[in-house]
Order: sequence, then C-alpha cells, then structure tokens
Amino acid sequence: MSIDPDDQYQHSKDPSMPNILFAAPQARWQEYEAPLKSALMATGLAYELATDMPAETVDYIIYAPNSDIQDFTPYTRLKAVLNLWAGVEQVVENTTLTVPLTRMVDTEGLTQGMVEWVTGHVLRHHLGMDAHIVNPDHKWDAVAPPLAPERRVCILGLGVLGTACARALIALGFDVSGWARSEKHIQGMTCHHGPDGLDAALNDAEIVVLLLPSTAETENCLNARTLDLLADGACVINPGRGPLIEDQALLDALDRGQIHHATLDVFRVEPLPRDHPFWSHPKVTVTPHIASETRPVTAAREIAQNIQRYERGDPLQHLVDRTAGY
Amino acid sequence: MSIDPDDQYQHSKDPSMPNILFAAPQARWQEYEAPLKSALMATGLAYELATDMPAETVDYIIYAPNSDIQDFTPYTRLKAVLNLWAGVEQVVENTTLTVPLTRMVDTEGLTQGMVEWVTGHVLRHHLGMDAHIVNPDHKWDAVAPPLAPERRVCILGLGVLGTACARALIALGFDVSGWARSEKHIQGMTCHHGPDGLDAALNDAEIVVLLLPSTAETENCLNARTLDLLADGACVINPGRGPLIEDQALLDALDRGQIHHATLDVFRVEPLPRDHPFWSHPKVTVTPHIASETRPVTAAREIAQNIQRYERGDPLQHLVDRTAGY
Repeated sequence: MSIDPDDQYQHSKDPSMPNILFAAPQARWQEYEAPLKSALMATGLAYELATDMPAETVDYIIYAPNSDIQDFTPYTRLKAVLNLWAGVEQVVENTTLTVPLTRMVDTEGLTQGMVEWVTGHVLRHHLGMDAHIVNPDHKWDAVAPPLAPERRVCILGLGVLGTACARALIALGFDVSGWARSEKHIQGMTCHHGPDGLDAALNDAEIVVLLLPSTAETENCLNARTLDLLADGACVINPGRGPLIEDQALLDALDRGQIHHATLDVFRVEPLPRDHPFWSHPKVTVTPHIASETRPVTAAREIAQNIQRYERGDPLQHLVDRTAGY
Repeated sequence: MSIDPDDQYQHSKDPSMPNILFAAPQARWQEYEAPLKSALMATGLAYELATDMPAETVDYIIYAPNSDIQDFTPYTRLKAVLNLWAGVEQVVENTTLTVPLTRMVDTEGLTQGMVEWVTGHVLRHHLGMDAHIVNPDHKWDAVAPPLAPERRVCILGLGVLGTACARALIALGFDVSGWARSEKHIQGMTCHHGPDGLDAALNDAEIVVLLLPSTAETENCLNARTLDLLADGACVINPGRGPLIEDQALLDALDRGQIHHATLDVFRVEPLPRDHPFWSHPKVTVTPHIASETRPVTAAREIAQNIQRYERGDPLQHLVDRTAGY
C-alpha cells in the first residue's frame, strides 16, 4: 500500500509525530476515542490517531487481541503494541509480533473503581438501604442505623486494593479491621496476619469484604466454619475472586439467617450461569464483575504516558516477557 | 419519700456523686442505657443512673418531654434538666421547672449520620446499584460506571452538614460543586453563591444534594426551571427539608425522564401520607427522615460531658433561654 497524497487516512509523515492505530472492535473506539485524544493531548505529544491507516506508516498499535489484526508482518515501521487488556494470552504467542508488547495495568482506574464499589456497598449494607429501595408496603419505619464508628468492617486482603478500601472506610469513621498473609501496619485499623490471625479478624465482624488473591491457600477461606465467626446477621461483600467463598456454605448461612446478605461481583464461572442459585436467592445481590474494570479515562492515560515515555527514549512500562508469557 | 437503707433504688447519698434520673419512654432506655453508662464512665465521674429513684435525691434528669414526669416540684435537689430532644417546645413553658434546661445538640451524630447517608446514596446512584439490587431478568450487563472524577455532584447548602458531605465526596474523588447564600471557600470544589450562582451550580450537575435550610427564599428552589438546568437523567437527593422541592415539578421531570431518580428523606408532611404519589412512583426512593437523627452514642456523650462540665463548675452548654423559648 503506497502513501497517496489524496489518501483518506490522516497520518503523519513526520517521524517525530507518531502514527497510532487503534485496533479493537468498534464499541471500544466509541469508549476510548475521546479519552485517548485527551490523554495524548495532555502529554504534549504531536500524534495521529485513527482506526485505519496504511500498515507501513504505523508506529504504535493500541490493541485488543480480538481485533481484526492477527498478522503484524505488514507493520514494518511498528515500534510497540500496547495491549488494551490486562490479559495477553491471546497475543503473546503470535510469532508475527516482533516488537515490544505491553499489557494494560490500569492501577489508577482499578483502585479508584474498587474503592467506589466497596465503599458504596459497605454504606448500602450499613445504612440498610435495600429496605427503602424495595418497600412495597410503604413502611415508614424511622429507625436510624448505628453510626459508622459502631460498625465493624473486616477486610480480608490488604494489598493495594484492600489498603485503599480500608483507608476510605476509616476516613468515613468505620471500625475497620483486616487480615493479610504477612504483617501490615495501616493507621486507624487493626491488621491481623498469618494463619492464626484470620479467625481474630473475622470474629464478630458485621461486614466482611474479600480482596484476597485467588490461591490454593485462599480458596474457600469463607466456609461454614469461618462464616460462623462473623456477627449474627453479617453481610458478605466479594469483589475479590470467586473461589474465595465456598458457595454452598454461604447459601446455607444465608438460609439460616446467620448471614443477612451477600453482594458478589466475582464468581467461579463468569458470567454467572443462569441456573446458579445466587441469581434467584433473595439475600444475594449479583453484580457483573464491574468492581475492578479497566476504565477508558485512566487506561487511556496509561497508554498515552507509555507512548510518551518510549518516544523520549525511556523504557516502556508493563512490558510483557514474551518467553514467560505475561 | 424518705431514704430507706433497704430502698430498692441504687442512689448515692454522697453529694459529689450525682444521681441521674432517666425520664423517657421505656424504648428510649433500651437505646440509651448502654451508651449513657459508657459515656458517663468515660468522663471519670462517679454517678448513679436509673429510670426510677426518690425524687428528692435526684440531681439531674435526662428528659424526654413525653415522659411521665410533668411536675418537677418534688425534685427539690435538682440541678438541671437535660432534654433528650432538640425540640423543647413541650417543656419550656412548664412553670414547675425552675432549674436550667438544656436541649440536645448532637452535632457529632447529626453530621456523621448525614455524611454517611449522603455519601451512601450518592455512591448508590453513581454506581447504578439499583439495577443490580432489583434485577428480575438476571441480566449480566458488565458495563462499569464512570469513575467519580467524571461524575458531577452539586451540593446546595454549604453549612456544617453540606460542607462535611462535600469533603467526604471530594475525598472519594467526585467532581463537586456547590452553592450557598454567602461566599464560601472549600478546598477541592467550586463554591457558587448568591442568587446568580444557583443556576451556575446546578448547570449540568448529574447528582444534586439538597442541604439548604427551609426559608421563604429557599422554598421550591428545585422547580421546573431549575430541574431543567441539571444534566439529562440527573438524580436528586434531598436530606434537607421537604419544602425545598416543588413536588409536582419533580414528579413531572421524573415522568418525562429529565430526572432519572429521586431519593427523598424529608417531606412537607411527615410521615409521608400513604396516598402521596412519591410512595408508589417507580423512580422515587422514600427514606423515613433518618439521614440526620440524634443517635444514642453521640447524644449520650453530649449529655455526659454537659453533666461533667456542670459538676466541675463550668456553665452548661446548649442552655435554653426560657424567655425566648428555645
């Protein structure tokens, strides 16, 4: 394909002005066009950005592995591929891709989104909102809930996400405790750790938030025995990983009233199968794995800053190790 | 009534150890007994606290105007009456009450409760929680909401409560603006003021929170014209005062979709009459005036600290001016 002056494609012939191809399904372009343009503008970089341009003019590809591009051979000037997804398993073994590949690490969006989701659902359960949102008998029952300092919230997992959520809940005044595998110190809360600390953290908690990674050790960490440690009528909130909960034990605890409600964002199988009892259980709220989604505004900023970095000669961030596969 | 050593009442004969009578309906005692004991303990004061003791031994009465006690004449040793309610209109004209009377000003509980309620309902609307809480078709629609920095929240009224709510929402990252009658400066937000500022504050807001006082000037400040300034599909949250909203204009805006949802805690008539259209409107959530209730834990602390203050010779706080009537 030759570069024609009448070419419909707006692309730069100036090598200091990179041509960036956005290669992903159309719906993504609608989400990402404005955030990407605004983020690239903020870097001060001159650039061309389009969903279509002659292959041999392209400097960077912002890439979804389910895009039409599966053969990178025509992209002779390509400097790097910036994956839109955190997962790279569908592109990492593509032998036509010989330039650096980065994966999406949207720390800002994931953390901010998780804090909003967790804080929102903790407040929802704390305030007993559901009784007002669904109130078919129009009951006017003016009983104020206790204040946050009287509400015991336990966060399992004190990594980046768990710590950020804990801080937001502490700022709102909640009585927060937590557990992590290794010793942690977070101002304003009690941090338990190690195998023995788990029971102490769960003991008498009224709202428990699961933010542990999914490992052989954490699988089913919320089971019949540990659910029983929580306060009577406690609420379970799981934005972490599906396998952290023994599903049947949770359903049993909900049925006998030991657990008042469960709000679950992650599941062993996703989307949650239509016949799974969580869907129809009156004490379960299902949210569709939205607590920690990559968000266009913050993801676009990550991509723009990575291109800016590479253009000025600094190494790319979140580079995929092509031999390790991640 | 004489003081008998076999008397069933535990009351102190030591004048340095005040006898405190709790005079309110039984339900209040159940709420207040533990918080009051704990708050009095925290002052370091030695005291007796009971719901019944010989009148002539009583030093302080913690008082609900609807209690059985309407004649204070037998309380010959009485030092002060501490009203459990903010309102004193049912006791202020009682001529048998000749000692100082205080009213309840539970700043800590009212402010904390308001911040929790407002933050919770802002996050609920921001995250679109209702679609997951009530999801009869079991839709798995994995669209993440925008992040808080992309959500424009407007707070009308920047007094103690409005400012505290604004700060909590700013800390969570929301794009907050506000309006007050007089000029205000709050870090992290744009504060509009004066008659001209109101339209600028409301313009394009996606979530509006009403925390203005109820005055002739603020009545119906949310009306057909001002509702139309908000972003299409905005949410209205009213924990302030019922008359701030022109009810019919809100219902019309909900019906034509200009307003997506209204969550209302206060009404022109309370409890909200059973035939009021707000009850059955699918886009209205009614909460029963619980956003800013006096809470036992913080109210008990106010009372205990006031008794401690008077015992050491300092003036009582929140003293009622018996001639002014408040």
